[in-house]
Amino acid sequence: MPAADLAWMLAAFALVLLMFPGLALFYGGMMKGRNALNMFMMVMGSMAITAVVYVAFGHGLVVGDSVGGLGLIGNPLEYAGWNAFTADDGSDSAYWGAFYTLFAAISIGIVASGAAGRMRFGSWLVFSALWVVLVYAPLGHWVFAFSDEETGVVGGWMRNVLGLHDYAGGTAVHMNAGASALALAAVLGPRRTSHGRPHNISLVLLGAGLLFAGWIGFNGGTAAGANFLAGYVTFTTLLAALGGGLGFALIEHYRDGQATMLGFATGLIAGLVGITPTADAVTPLASLPLGLVCGAVVAWAITWMRRRKVDDALDAFAVHGIGGIVGTYLAVLFASSAAPAGLSGIVFGGDPMLAVTETIAIAVTLAYSFGVTYAIAWVMNKIHPIRVTAKEEAIGLDRALHAETAYDFDRI
Amino acid sequence: MPAADLAWMLAAFALVLLMFPGLALFYGGMMKGRNALNMFMMVMGSMAITAVVYVAFGHGLVVGDSVGGLGLIGNPLEYAGWNAFTADDGSDSAYWGAFYTLFAAISIGIVASGAAGRMRFGSWLVFSALWVVLVYAPLGHWVFAFSDEETGVVGGWMRNVLGLHDYAGGTAVHMNAGASALALAAVLGPRRTSHGRPHNISLVLLGAGLLFAGWIGFNGGTAAGANFLAGYVTFTTLLAALGGGLGFALIEHYRDGQATMLGFATGLIAGLVGITPTADAVTPLASLPLGLVCGAVVAWAITWMRRRKVDDALDAFAVHGIGGIVGTYLAVLFASSAAPAGLSGIVFGGDPMLAVTETIAIAVTLAYSFGVTYAIAWVMNKIHPIRVTAKEEAIGLDRALHAETAYDFDRI
Amino acid sequence: MPAADLAWMLAAFALVLLMFPGLALFYGGMMKGRNALNMFMMVMGSMAITAVVYVAFGHGLVVGDSVGGLGLIGNPLEYAGWNAFTADDGSDSAYWGAFYTLFAAISIGIVASGAAGRMRFGSWLVFSALWVVLVYAPLGHWVFAFSDEETGVVGGWMRNVLGLHDYAGGTAVHMNAGASALALAAVLGPRRTSHGRPHNISLVLLGAGLLFAGWIGFNGGTAAGANFLAGYVTFTTLLAALGGGLGFALIEHYRDGQATMLGFATGLIAGLVGITPTADAVTPLASLPLGLVCGAVVAWAITWMRRRKVDDALDAFAVHGIGGIVGTYLAVLFASSAAPAGLSGIVFGGDPMLAVTETIAIAVTLAYSFGVTYAIAWVMNKIHPIRVTAKEEAIGLDRALHAETAYDFDRI
Repeated sequence: MPAADLAWMLAAFALVLLMFPGLALFYGGMMKGRNALNMFMMVMGSMAITAVVYVAFGHGLVVGDSVGGLGLIGNPLEYAGWNAFTADDGSDSAYWGAFYTLFAAISIGIVASGAAGRMRFGSWLVFSALWVVLVYAPLGHWVFAFSDEETGVVGGWMRNVLGLHDYAGGTAVHMNAGASALALAAVLGPRRTSHGRPHNISLVLLGAGLLFAGWIGFNGGTAAGANFLAGYVTFTTLLAALGGGLGFALIEHYRDGQATMLGFATGLIAGLVGITPTADAVTPLASLPLGLVCGAVVAWAITWMRRRKVDDALDAFAVHGIGGIVGTYLAVLFASSAAPAGLSGIVFGGDPMLAVTETIAIAVTLAYSFGVTYAIAWVMNKIHPIRVTAKEEAIGLDRALHAETAYDFDRI
Repeated sequence: MPAADLAWMLAAFALVLLMFPGLALFYGGMMKGRNALNMFMMVMGSMAITAVVYVAFGHGLVVGDSVGGLGLIGNPLEYAGWNAFTADDGSDSAYWGAFYTLFAAISIGIVASGAAGRMRFGSWLVFSALWVVLVYAPLGHWVFAFSDEETGVVGGWMRNVLGLHDYAGGTAVHMNAGASALALAAVLGPRRTSHGRPHNISLVLLGAGLLFAGWIGFNGGTAAGANFLAGYVTFTTLLAALGGGLGFALIEHYRDGQATMLGFATGLIAGLVGITPTADAVTPLASLPLGLVCGAVVAWAITWMRRRKVDDALDAFAVHGIGGIVGTYLAVLFASSAAPAGLSGIVFGGDPMLAVTETIAIAVTLAYSFGVTYAIAWVMNKIHPIRVTAKEEAIGLDRALHAETAYDFDRI
Repeated sequence: MPAADLAWMLAAFALVLLMFPGLALFYGGMMKGRNALNMFMMVMGSMAITAVVYVAFGHGLVVGDSVGGLGLIGNPLEYAGWNAFTADDGSDSAYWGAFYTLFAAISIGIVASGAAGRMRFGSWLVFSALWVVLVYAPLGHWVFAFSDEETGVVGGWMRNVLGLHDYAGGTAVHMNAGASALALAAVLGPRRTSHGRPHNISLVLLGAGLLFAGWIGFNGGTAAGANFLAGYVTFTTLLAALGGGLGFALIEHYRDGQATMLGFATGLIAGLVGITPTADAVTPLASLPLGLVCGAVVAWAITWMRRRKVDDALDAFAVHGIGGIVGTYLAVLFASSAAPAGLSGIVFGGDPMLAVTETIAIAVTLAYSFGVTYAIAWVMNKIHPIRVTAKEEAIGLDRALHAETAYDFDRI
């Protein structure tokens, strides 16, 4: 990688790293204060587990050559033990190992929200390892492993055979994590205690702010260098995020009579999710209403999901699943050939087959993620209950599982 | 833009993006806890409104060719709908659209502090849009639109006709926002309730820290590339900020007997404001005392302003208005020809006309910002009261306007 | 410096700048709430003092030519008043001045933890200035000043005569700060009041998260450009940090029956400390267990240190001293010649003399830091007590020394 490109990629890595405290605080702030530390621990703990899996064989599963050329899973031995990563062969493999570790880790971090306030911590860590291997790695391979005719490398089927357009992981990261959170929540069952209000919205705002800046690294870094594309997606990402906040706030305003900070922050994330698969395919002008629609639909979807039986406590499916789906279909309709991806949306005379392609990718992603995650959690639960006891839930997971409390203001 | 320059500019953009949660937390932490979310919402909401205005026609107003070659306002159609921003013509217009959107958005975010704790949220959003168009856009054009003789482009009068030296927006961003906050506070009238102490100084420190790092992107990014100037202003910015914190703390120490964290953080921001117009014009050695004097004068100015009738709740005029003025005049006196700008201060034998030039720019900025902002708020208030009711103010704006509270520690 | 390298270094600088609010919040969150602001003030105040010392003559002491060619201390006049820093001579001296100021400032910031909750603020500022000159500057020179045969520049003895391998400051920053915190705590004596629980673990997590991202700038920036080494150490740094968190959590799990968020965050920092001297010398595969062992040993060391008489309140010696020592010896054993440093660990047939070299450097660092710091604090205390009164300690330092409190939640 030329030094100028690497300069940006290193900064992008650090920005993505800020997404982890960002996600932990965003989710932790929404919890009751007695379950906040447990949420922090789930995000940070699964990040560490992901690193272990990646060191062992995970990176090859995702970006290695397809085993048997089938496009289903990468070769786990290709980067096993990272031993390929010490040589300065100009490919910057070490850098990419680090960057992709974070992609996997942020995905499992989002899944954590589905278990909010009711999962044994040891079970969560075991689940994390299994999920990264059995759910994230295949999906990551399908979407992030590019074939290369010249060198004969065969990548994932979704990207290379189906011809999916997904800029930075709307399927493999967001819809995947959203559907998996839902499945995990379904196996765990709803929370026993009253849900209560978010205990600290300052943390939610701060978390959203760190995620926002980190997303510039996530989407901008996917451009793989300091180039026009990176600047372009920075712009569309900014506008979609702000559109998302506005869209959520407008729905709240007209439905409830007031806009909340929690809603604006959630809409911001919804806009970011919506632009992730499409940041290179829509014009800046289109990215603002794209975000706005994502924010508005997610505002509605959260209310709709709350009436279901599954207690997806922090709305991961609504935000990451539905947000990603809406963003993708908006691009199917309104993608502009003037944008870097060069795709024409159906409204602008583009090939309607794009709708079919994206629909297949979305359906397979949701079905695979939900199904396999459900199976992992169900089997684990049969072997040993993965849920905390009613007593632990009543005490709060911070004291019950981690023997500490998030705050002690008594002595001030 | 060469890739190496863009690499830094992309990172600078993300740093400036961190200034928004930074500003929201810096201001929100200073409020009573019942008005914290409203402050967050004002900063984030006006950021979103700015994006809408910019998409429509705002960017052209600021950096487009001067309408009629008069240097008063840019051509709103030049970038209308951002349609010029999809082509990779080597100018990185998309990147600049994103960067400049944040410059406008941080300015209106500072103005929000003038309305702290007492403005209707809908009125704030309408005001934001009007302010960006009628106040920020002209001033931005006067200062940030450079003429180019070769291509015949005609930019703003302050920069090109008057010959203002303002490195990164001391006039168009800081004095403008400070004077506007004061005008808005004057129209709104003082808060009815006791002001109380800052509810969360941890947030103030965190906010100041994010603003500090973000300012490296703001001032460093204004160098438009990864060059000597960017490294230089990074250094002067660092030193002025720390000098500002020290200066404020020294005044507190000798006047009150102790230094406060709130004071240090405020002084840090004052030092950053003071170096913004002058970061390229003073030596590193001079930047530390420059910041120190700015911090000290602002410490004094805050006390002085508090005795006035206008309730500029979070001291935006003292910090951003007076801080910017002091920094500018210190550079008029002590600018060094050895610094990148190549200006000689009057003390070092420079042209005394510099004082006249800067004085005209400052006076026009303050008069225009205060006058037009006052007029906007006054007219809006005549059409429909922009202030919340006494009852809403007593309840607190978080519950009254947003139906939520920043914290719920009862269930820990 | 080529523009591409500078692009990364500017971003790295901003990341390191985030370590200051990070450190302040990490430490402040661990304190009782009545001493949190004082901790913030110590970190930010000593940062400002460091800038003053650096402006005057500090930078020359560290990286200037060795006085008399002895390798003991740099020439304080070489950069006095930074007057060498205005010329764009291609050496980017201004940038380096800024970057190195932060290295010194973060070191004294760590030392602050040794004085947690019981030092007069004025004494702390005086101590900071003396410590930077008398302790940090010599150690910095020994480790960070490279000799150059071509130009005849003579640097520090540890690096150039002894042949120390220390990638990014395991000795000069971490062991130095850890031993100094211990010495300062020894002179001050233990806290009089019950220690209490950390008042805000959200801040601890946030602080750790900012430190984590900042460390990418610290270690990645030490590569002095956007090159393979920078990408490599980014990867090893990431893995060691996460290994550290896991290692601490495992010890807690097997010893206490549960893992805490405070423990995970502390282990994360321990892993980062451990990889700092060795990030370029071990393989990515080795960096994860290296971090894990550092985290585990530090978990044990904290408990062991708590039984000693010296009240190193926030465990700086255990984390930064012992963490750095463990990391260094692990590299002595397991360094891989395939890593960029090209060193072979003893286990892989490397020269056993490396153990001797590193042991001498560690022993001299610890002895010098502890001894001189103890002497400074002891002498200062003889001249005027550096400790607050029992009454001030009982009230809490925030109210007693700074006339403010970190929180006021009463009015929500």
